[in-house]
Amino acid sequence: MGFVLPEYRHPDFSLPEFSSSPDVRTAPAPADGVAPEGYHSTSMYPEYFKIGGKWTLAADSRMDSSVVIREDGQPYVIENRNLRKGDAVVLGRTERAEEGIYMHCDGFTDAGGAGLDDQFVFRQGRSRETAFARDYDRLTELLSYEKEHGNIVWVMGPAFAFDAGARSAMASLIDKGYCHGLLAGNALATHDLEGALLHTALGQDIYTQRSMPNGHYNHLDICNKVRKCGSIPAFIKEYGLDDGIICACVRNKVPFVLAGSIRDDGPLPEVISDVYRAQDTMRGVLRKATTVICLATMLHTIASGNMTPSYRVLPDGTVRPVYFYAVDADEFVVNKLLDRGSLSATTMVTNVQDFIRITANRLD
Amino acid sequence: MGFVLPEYRHPDFSLPEFSSSPDVRTAPAPADGVAPEGYHSTSMYPEYFKIGGKWTLAADSRMDSSVVIREDGQPYVIENRNLRKGDAVVLGRTERAEEGIYMHCDGFTDAGGAGLDDQFVFRQGRSRETAFARDYDRLTELLSYEKEHGNIVWVMGPAFAFDAGARSAMASLIDKGYCHGLLAGNALATHDLEGALLHTALGQDIYTQRSMPNGHYNHLDICNKVRKCGSIPAFIKEYGLDDGIICACVRNKVPFVLAGSIRDDGPLPEVISDVYRAQDTMRGVLRKATTVICLATMLHTIASGNMTPSYRVLPDGTVRPVYFYAVDADEFVVNKLLDRGSLSATTMVTNVQDFIRITANRLD
Amino acid sequence: MGFVLPEYRHPDFSLPEFSSSPDVRTAPAPADGVAPEGYHSTSMYPEYFKIGGKWTLAADSRMDSSVVIREDGQPYVIENRNLRKGDAVVLGRTERAEEGIYMHCDGFTDAGGAGLDDQFVFRQGRSRETAFARDYDRLTELLSYEKEHGNIVWVMGPAFAFDAGARSAMASLIDKGYCHGLLAGNALATHDLEGALLHTALGQDIYTQRSMPNGHYNHLDICNKVRKCGSIPAFIKEYGLDDGIICACVRNKVPFVLAGSIRDDGPLPEVISDVYRAQDTMRGVLRKATTVICLATMLHTIASGNMTPSYRVLPDGTVRPVYFYAVDADEFVVNKLLDRGSLSATTMVTNVQDFIRITANRLD
Amino acid sequence: MGFVLPEYRHPDFSLPEFSSSPDVRTAPAPADGVAPEGYHSTSMYPEYFKIGGKWTLAADSRMDSSVVIREDGQPYVIENRNLRKGDAVVLGRTERAEEGIYMHCDGFTDAGGAGLDDQFVFRQGRSRETAFARDYDRLTELLSYEKEHGNIVWVMGPAFAFDAGARSAMASLIDKGYCHGLLAGNALATHDLEGALLHTALGQDIYTQRSMPNGHYNHLDICNKVRKCGSIPAFIKEYGLDDGIICACVRNKVPFVLAGSIRDDGPLPEVISDVYRAQDTMRGVLRKATTVICLATMLHTIASGNMTPSYRVLPDGTVRPVYFYAVDADEFVVNKLLDRGSLSATTMVTNVQDFIRITANRLD
Repeated sequence: MGFVLPEYRHPDFSLPEFSSSPDVRTAPAPADGVAPEGYHSTSMYPEYFKIGGKWTLAADSRMDSSVVIREDGQPYVIENRNLRKGDAVVLGRTERAEEGIYMHCDGFTDAGGAGLDDQFVFRQGRSRETAFARDYDRLTELLSYEKEHGNIVWVMGPAFAFDAGARSAMASLIDKGYCHGLLAGNALATHDLEGALLHTALGQDIYTQRSMPNGHYNHLDICNKVRKCGSIPAFIKEYGLDDGIICACVRNKVPFVLAGSIRDDGPLPEVISDVYRAQDTMRGVLRKATTVICLATMLHTIASGNMTPSYRVLPDGTVRPVYFYAVDADEFVVNKLLDRGSLSATTMVTNVQDFIRITANRLD
Repeated sequence: MGFVLPEYRHPDFSLPEFSSSPDVRTAPAPADGVAPEGYHSTSMYPEYFKIGGKWTLAADSRMDSSVVIREDGQPYVIENRNLRKGDAVVLGRTERAEEGIYMHCDGFTDAGGAGLDDQFVFRQGRSRETAFARDYDRLTELLSYEKEHGNIVWVMGPAFAFDAGARSAMASLIDKGYCHGLLAGNALATHDLEGALLHTALGQDIYTQRSMPNGHYNHLDICNKVRKCGSIPAFIKEYGLDDGIICACVRNKVPFVLAGSIRDDGPLPEVISDVYRAQDTMRGVLRKATTVICLATMLHTIASGNMTPSYRVLPDGTVRPVYFYAVDADEFVVNKLLDRGSLSATTMVTNVQDFIRITANRLD
Repeated sequence: MGFVLPEYRHPDFSLPEFSSSPDVRTAPAPADGVAPEGYHSTSMYPEYFKIGGKWTLAADSRMDSSVVIREDGQPYVIENRNLRKGDAVVLGRTERAEEGIYMHCDGFTDAGGAGLDDQFVFRQGRSRETAFARDYDRLTELLSYEKEHGNIVWVMGPAFAFDAGARSAMASLIDKGYCHGLLAGNALATHDLEGALLHTALGQDIYTQRSMPNGHYNHLDICNKVRKCGSIPAFIKEYGLDDGIICACVRNKVPFVLAGSIRDDGPLPEVISDVYRAQDTMRGVLRKATTVICLATMLHTIASGNMTPSYRVLPDGTVRPVYFYAVDADEFVVNKLLDRGSLSATTMVTNVQDFIRITANRLD
Repeated sequence: MGFVLPEYRHPDFSLPEFSSSPDVRTAPAPADGVAPEGYHSTSMYPEYFKIGGKWTLAADSRMDSSVVIREDGQPYVIENRNLRKGDAVVLGRTERAEEGIYMHCDGFTDAGGAGLDDQFVFRQGRSRETAFARDYDRLTELLSYEKEHGNIVWVMGPAFAFDAGARSAMASLIDKGYCHGLLAGNALATHDLEGALLHTALGQDIYTQRSMPNGHYNHLDICNKVRKCGSIPAFIKEYGLDDGIICACVRNKVPFVLAGSIRDDGPLPEVISDVYRAQDTMRGVLRKATTVICLATMLHTIASGNMTPSYRVLPDGTVRPVYFYAVDADEFVVNKLLDRGSLSATTMVTNVQDFIRITANRLD
């Protein structure tokens, strides 16, 4: 029957609790990267701030950040580390309009895609024994919709490139337009390019699993060759590669962000070595996302979850949900999201290789 | 390219180490269920016993059992608990012909299906990060072959019936002839029949996951109704059911064994309450198996692994491999098989719901 | 400060909802092992039944069972399989007195040991990252109390006997009076006796982990020798053993129940091969338990959880809580208890070897 | 009986294969951060390079790096990213002296601490069911030795600070001199300081687990306050803190490295935002380490494993082993080390809270 975008309803600001509420108070940030005492911190939900008597939705949010009122009278959601001395930071730790701040958790009342009952299910925790049939059906409908009308960002752990089948399933999804952005690390890109050039990952054949003689050099050789070429696109061109995830991104001009970590070899030239600059760049991609799918990476899943609000304000002013999926073989990883309050997420417990095989097959 | 049965080569018994070897020695079992001191215990591999100067393969083996030479001069593999006082039990704890016993681990030299390199890979351990693309390809080819020429036994944990999609995928495989026997417990059958009658498992809708009011009664009600009907087929008939795994088995006359456990409610009438009689009945089914696929059950997987040899002697005398698959979301479970020496197994780490979705889809 | 038994308060049956409630209705069981339509099924909580105008607490309960009113006018909690044709089985699926049935979840209002806040924490799920310091403190206090005033039953998975340290820590707890009953399977007892006779488990030294030559015979040899001796005590005497868990039980006359499973080799003579008779025997031990501690066994933990109510009526009529601990390295296992509604449990995620090292050390 | 340092034996370079071997070849690095084609990459084992006819051990090694011969004729192990254009990089991908490179895996023939049998055990994989009694005994002896004669570096995941008991056990080990360096991330330090100031971690009491009202602000407030103070020591002084892990490090002048990640809030001022600079700083600490203990962190464990060789050359020229422990509740994490070839490691599968409770108690 297809996916229908749930409608968003703003709070009824004509109610007395809103009209009688004071404007938000602010205080100047005392130093660069430091919030004033009593600063308000954002959630993943839509939050409204009463400014000059008017309730205004923060359009571009993320959790755990401060809100700065700029000269245009608008609220901006800024990570504390990015505050500048003197910024007018919203104060207040109540969210029911008492201090001019209102958090609106249930704006999407029509449960078209991921409504109340899902959230209930999620709160219960999910395990390998949860029934996922409906999740697959919904995801298929959602991605078909998002391909045309939304923005799908994939977040990927390194192991994804170890399997020839998963790798080519993902590449086909990119080629077909189901990927508008990719967030990963140095390892995913290096493994995938090793597959493209040598048909191995960490020296093991990605189809037969056979270990190649001296194959442990393959990984390091890829890093070294790409570094010598100066960039991933230059490397792809130099060696005439066209297979796998990264090639598909380059071919389709899908932006990818490779965030550095202390585990990295190499790194590839595109890897962002400063993690806070990497966060800013990731958020730049996630700002456009309407669906985020995280696969087999605790680090990048939590990082992305932190930066992804439960809603997006489209250019025409429409407020819509952002769908967030986390897929991992381990309950522990997907349940971490629950701890962090990402209640709008759908979590699935399975091997991501199989998840992508099934998903690509259904969208074929 | 399809599956080709690997050829089996008997040892070359004309070699001096075989011709100079003594006949096996035996001693009588001192009591029912007790082996004599120094008894030989079987492995999962083909084992030959020199009896009356002739090397004879034990045709119907399993690991960890004694070998009894009966009056016909043939070796029979008997669990110690099933020994009878006076049985002539083979003695000896060497397996290189020194005592008339020879274990032949590498008879299948042509690695058509699961040859040496697989074993090597398996020995390394497998994880959620192992590449499984080739395993799926091989399994598809294998099952297509076995449907016509072999005997496929499925071993199933209870959670399998929690998901509407997995349940119907499995039912379709049964309907299409890919299942010649099913081993499970009381819970799998009860959950599956709850799905058939009420579309729930433990009171949760198997598609929407919604908890039904008073749904915790559903499970107990199913047990009670089946017990009242006197048998599963009578229950299916009484309520006009036709959907799910157990209905498919009954409809297709596929034998199923339900082994009891101390976790059971009910139990259903077909459940075998004595675990050693259950073992014997399971072995009766596994005796015919040429491929065994174990899904999400540590208890039944290990039990089946213990009873399943690495080879089968067909009625025409052909010796062929038995393929053993263990699929589970948890590395710990599949790696237990490694500890137990089931080296001929293929282990896959994934959610069994997805495994069966993919497998059924490929065989469609 | 020590453990204080929380006080139990019966409901105030003078309130109108109780006095205006009808007596419970019953219907005869239509056949042996079959409950009548609409039977009431018990929970783990205290339940009262209005019989002859009087509210009576079922004294000896367990979950998922029927309630039979016998000629003495008392309610008896009977598993459906143990019903006899004609038994007067309580009907009703409401629990707020509407049909003469009242479930009393919050009788223990004083949170001395495991009060409301614990339950809340448990509902949230627990993981390897949960803080367990207070749980250890409480358990130490609890066991010191129970040693003198209660009845401590340990439920044990097979792996427990693999480690020399864990094994001797457990034996010392038994010797010191902290164990009034033991529930396990064939494997635990066999591994432990292998340790006692040969200092190995499955052929590996339990201290150095070194694999012994032909060590895979050790396990089978133990089974065979005990079977030859006819019983575990006879075996212990024959070989002069005195070390480990089973020897400590025998030495201290602690009853142990070994329930059979389809994984078993052997089995040892004491193993109960019929799982429903095993359930009955386990419930016989658990009937006296005031604290139950389950270690590294999904099968026995769930089985024991099913049979263990949240309260116990002492001979003097005092109603007290039963404390239920489940300890496992895997969140999945301990969270299964949550699914089954065992809300009064304390779950801890750790290696049981370390759990017992710490616990024995603190009680020293 | 105490720990005895195993003796190291250099290869016998008088043997013909060594004397007939050519000198190593080198080629200049073609650009900064790029190795020449055919570069040799190091392992974690001692490697000797024939330079000017003389076999020289690389004294300060790590795996997956190049070897540069500097003007002093000595081999230096340099990560590829740290190569400078023109550096004379050793070429060769054989390690049995054929090209002047010799890898010496079995120099520590006397298995005093972690000899051959341990390695064998490790190769088998370890699980929650492995016997760890001897590992605890050895670790206790080792740490007693290292406190006086070695250098112990702890590597710590964030969850470690969630439990009051684990946190104080670790602090006591630091106070007693069992910690010469600490590697962690922003989260560990922030959680620990939240515990020191507010007795919570992520807003939950670290002893009672009770969630504090508005407790989710605690974490962000700690970050903000430390940033305002300008440094961790300034924050500790300002608020008069003295409890927990970080306070113990500061009090005892134990160096700690906090490496940034894309999950970080804050970050604390000491966090190194550039991951490659963080790697260099970590290696600076690990260069001195003789025992490394990694607790509940896949990211930092693998990063540290990559940088830690299996041996150390002491100032007096003695070559000794570096002991590497990885402790985690999840087999998957500890087995990752096996994939990466860190064969000299000891892995233990348990909750790190319990590991540290036991270890601190034994060293008391």
